[in-house]
Amino acid sequence: MNWNIYLSGEIHTDWREQLKSGCETLKLPITFTSAVTDHDASDSAGDVLGAEDKNFWRDHKSAKVNAIRTKRLIQNCDVAVVRFGDKYKQWNAAFDAGYCAALGKPYITLHSEDIIHPLKEVDGAAMAWATTPEQVVEILKYVISAD
Amino acid sequence: MNWNIYLSGEIHTDWREQLKSGCETLKLPITFTSAVTDHDASDSAGDVLGAEDKNFWRDHKSAKVNAIRTKRLIQNCDVAVVRFGDKYKQWNAAFDAGYCAALGKPYITLHSEDIIHPLKEVDGAAMAWATTPEQVVEILKYVISAD
Amino acid sequence: MNWNIYLSGEIHTDWREQLKSGCETLKLPITFTSAVTDHDASDSAGDVLGAEDKNFWRDHKSAKVNAIRTKRLIQNCDVAVVRFGDKYKQWNAAFDAGYCAALGKPYITLHSEDIIHPLKEVDGAAMAWATTPEQVVEILKYVISAD
Amino acid sequence: MNWNIYLSGEIHTDWREQLKSGCETLKLPITFTSAVTDHDASDSAGDVLGAEDKNFWRDHKSAKVNAIRTKRLIQNCDVAVVRFGDKYKQWNAAFDAGYCAALGKPYITLHSEDIIHPLKEVDGAAMAWATTPEQVVEILKYVISAD
Amino acid sequence: MNWNIYLSGEIHTDWREQLKSGCETLKLPITFTSAVTDHDASDSAGDVLGAEDKNFWRDHKSAKVNAIRTKRLIQNCDVAVVRFGDKYKQWNAAFDAGYCAALGKPYITLHSEDIIHPLKEVDGAAMAWATTPEQVVEILKYVISAD
Amino acid sequence: MNWNIYLSGEIHTDWREQLKSGCETLKLPITFTSAVTDHDASDSAGDVLGAEDKNFWRDHKSAKVNAIRTKRLIQNCDVAVVRFGDKYKQWNAAFDAGYCAALGKPYITLHSEDIIHPLKEVDGAAMAWATTPEQVVEILKYVISAD
Amino acid sequence: MNWNIYLSGEIHTDWREQLKSGCETLKLPITFTSAVTDHDASDSAGDVLGAEDKNFWRDHKSAKVNAIRTKRLIQNCDVAVVRFGDKYKQWNAAFDAGYCAALGKPYITLHSEDIIHPLKEVDGAAMAWATTPEQVVEILKYVISAD
Amino acid sequence: MNWNIYLSGEIHTDWREQLKSGCETLKLPITFTSAVTDHDASDSAGDVLGAEDKNFWRDHKSAKVNAIRTKRLIQNCDVAVVRFGDKYKQWNAAFDAGYCAALGKPYITLHSEDIIHPLKEVDGAAMAWATTPEQVVEILKYVISAD
Repeated sequence: MNWNIYLSGEIHTDWREQLKSGCETLKLPITFTSAVTDHDASDSAGDVLGAEDKNFWRDHKSAKVNAIRTKRLIQNCDVAVVRFGDKYKQWNAAFDAGYCAALGKPYITLHSEDIIHPLKEVDGAAMAWATTPEQVVEILKYVISAD
Repeated sequence: MNWNIYLSGEIHTDWREQLKSGCETLKLPITFTSAVTDHDASDSAGDVLGAEDKNFWRDHKSAKVNAIRTKRLIQNCDVAVVRFGDKYKQWNAAFDAGYCAALGKPYITLHSEDIIHPLKEVDGAAMAWATTPEQVVEILKYVISAD
Repeated sequence: MNWNIYLSGEIHTDWREQLKSGCETLKLPITFTSAVTDHDASDSAGDVLGAEDKNFWRDHKSAKVNAIRTKRLIQNCDVAVVRFGDKYKQWNAAFDAGYCAALGKPYITLHSEDIIHPLKEVDGAAMAWATTPEQVVEILKYVISAD
Repeated sequence: MNWNIYLSGEIHTDWREQLKSGCETLKLPITFTSAVTDHDASDSAGDVLGAEDKNFWRDHKSAKVNAIRTKRLIQNCDVAVVRFGDKYKQWNAAFDAGYCAALGKPYITLHSEDIIHPLKEVDGAAMAWATTPEQVVEILKYVISAD
Repeated sequence: MNWNIYLSGEIHTDWREQLKSGCETLKLPITFTSAVTDHDASDSAGDVLGAEDKNFWRDHKSAKVNAIRTKRLIQNCDVAVVRFGDKYKQWNAAFDAGYCAALGKPYITLHSEDIIHPLKEVDGAAMAWATTPEQVVEILKYVISAD
Repeated sequence: MNWNIYLSGEIHTDWREQLKSGCETLKLPITFTSAVTDHDASDSAGDVLGAEDKNFWRDHKSAKVNAIRTKRLIQNCDVAVVRFGDKYKQWNAAFDAGYCAALGKPYITLHSEDIIHPLKEVDGAAMAWATTPEQVVEILKYVISAD
Repeated sequence: MNWNIYLSGEIHTDWREQLKSGCETLKLPITFTSAVTDHDASDSAGDVLGAEDKNFWRDHKSAKVNAIRTKRLIQNCDVAVVRFGDKYKQWNAAFDAGYCAALGKPYITLHSEDIIHPLKEVDGAAMAWATTPEQVVEILKYVISAD
Repeated sequence: MNWNIYLSGEIHTDWREQLKSGCETLKLPITFTSAVTDHDASDSAGDVLGAEDKNFWRDHKSAKVNAIRTKRLIQNCDVAVVRFGDKYKQWNAAFDAGYCAALGKPYITLHSEDIIHPLKEVDGAAMAWATTPEQVVEILKYVISAD
């Protein structure tokens, strides 16, 4: 039985690659999905539909094009992993977590200990909190392949 | 016909009061609801259930107690207003927005122009973006009482 | 037991008033709701949020503000009446009908015989087709008050 | 991961073929579906169930037979593309858009600039508005295959 | 707390009146609802929309007008009582039972012992089977008012 | 794209075989499903769980065991065909139709003209009414394979 | 805004009364509901429908009659409190907790520390764990009336 | 057509193996799933996320990690079999049964006659009650493969 795992959040470190390679080494039957993680491509996703003078509308068009992809992937996933790094606002990661919570999709948060307090609502609805990709790999190994 | 409006986000400025008094002046039939906005009370919501040594579990217990209230209020609201200020992480506001989006609850964002870009996913799923409480009052007046 | 009836479509004739006065004469326990039917007010619903140079975005903002109202009213209605006149595109009326169909909300179409063919999909999912407001009043009288 | 894309609306130009061939050239993993686009076959879909004297009932029977197909395809699609041409009422296209909106299915509208205003409600609930099939192909390429 | 009880099925005996008067005597807080039980009025419910030559379409129109009422009442009820008498086909009663089953609405069947076998699927999804209106009154009294 | 078609109702004539062989000849991509149609096997489905003295409980146990199968098959079907013959009560067929209606599953009724009136509610919620298996085959051919 | 609170589980101590009187003293706007807590009345709820020789069927009939009440009350509640005492199996309490979990209804467990381990799945899906009715009163006071 | 069967409850006897081998002998197209049944592995499922001083939190973390697996498997199953042995509290089995009931998933209980009474609510919502794995095999054989 294959598992679809959606990886949400931070795009400035290689946590996705660590997580994927850890799971591949274990040959876990997982299909990983994600938003488009190329920052420039993501920001310009709507440009093909016409140029905009205002930043708001350029962002708006791109955000909606991206949402065609992300909404589908989240709705079809079995588990999401939501990563918060130590930079940037990362409101889209918290938005994804809220979206998962309302749909009843289980999610695992991945963040360091120093941001426990501002993430308490996000962690409160999560199924697990991990601080390293290795821990997430362990959890997935257990959840998917233990007897 | 009464409207339930949930006010989410920033607790350090008086935007809630501005919004409420603006609507009261117009005698709009609105019941406003909100998370508990007393920061200390909110952080200690779970303390009555027993002390915790670790910050994570203290936060966890309080977050879940708070969620009993906030999930109900969001599920029962007709519209949410989600406010992002210029300080703090405010991940709970973005979480609420994602929760609304997945439930199909319309929400209005309220934030200044300089954080358009990091909020593009949150704004992309919103029904309107306002920069002042007065604008939100105008929108609510129109939505609720125009003919 | 009160009934909520949503009136969708044409705003250039007085069919809403005919329908309402017919039901009031019969003292039927109905609350009628509707989109904002003042054409100019509706088109400018989003203007308070800031001026737009492009027609598309002005319309977009207003359409979303209007949808805060119409989505709620349709979701809360017991029956919708969807009116197609002999002028204009009236795509919003057909959109409302499709919205009702997907939600399982029963709706009654109100239109003349000469547009049967282009409305066949809309009529195919309707619970009744009427050609005059008087017929709709009769149907509502029966549905609501017969023993 | 395969994507199901439902193509709704205009049947008098070759936009479906342009869109399909554009995606085939890119080898995108898409299954395209559609209502029956042979106009006469569609109008006579219910004739096998017996002749009707009245146009309304002939149309009614055919519309319902067609809906067996279209409801299933829309419910199973990942994205819909809804095309409005410059002729005919095309109320079925707007009906499909409303149906998608209520189900939470993302859809892209495809129409020229001169009908922005009558389509504002339909565009307001869409994830993107395109004016050419090529733009839709670009959006699909990005949504489906970008990293 | 008020209970909405939908009474479905047989219209040729006075079981509805027995049930209602039994509950009124006990002053149970119940609102009873029902399809229109005047047989002729029900059969001609759609006639106001225009005469039909074919029985099928006359019945079809009336059935749909009646469904505006019955679907709402069933969707809003807390419990349904579905009565099968010893005459007629009463397929509408079995249809209502299936409708309740799919919605998760609890229902009580009311029929004599000699039709247990043909009703086994209908009884299999019911919460109780009664043979007299008095038994149903007893069940409702217990369910609604016991401590 | 494969279609799941659930065949409900009468088990005393060979309409299922006619329908299946008609579709096989056309090589339509259909998986047909059904309740267990061996009358004795169906009636004794629960006997393995222990003998019962009362007919009601024997029927009850078997009905529930059968429902494990039928509920799943109906929930997973794309279209149901519900057949009413000229004998027996066939309340289970009407029950299945009501179950489909509440789930939004399209269904086609198959019955002769002389029982139009008692089936008006069942036909009112159907997508088509056919009098012969050949007509159903034609409808399925069109719905599944027309362009 | 009134809150509906469902009290599930143990019927051999007076925890319900303690909880209710604590909330009444605080004048919290709560309607408390519960299964019928008179053990004998509950066990004989179905007896009015006819005597049974087998314990299984007597229990079965009563359980279903009771479920007409309890399913409605749980579906309509805002919060459930699920109490596990130190005697008896109390599988119905765990069943109610699972029912709440699947519906997304928040619940609070109330039990002593020595049964933490066997209740870990039930507590894992709960919003809070309390050991005394006073704690539950405090939580409800905060959730319902804090600002 | 493959069936997913979830096996819930007792882990101290070999009922799962009996059931599986019985179905394998019959070559029934079934995929069996289950919580992790290695007791120690299950209790320590969350340990990789960090040690806990308090039993409650250790259990809490493990319960939630386990729930990532079990919620998915239950949501995807066609039928559940819920086993109650004669030892231990087994509240998780009753919790799973309640979870299934609320989702509308059919389940079969498997337990001896002496615990009929405390399980009456759990059995009341079940589709069948069996006392031996062989009976469950027979039921599954019938449900899945009879004609």
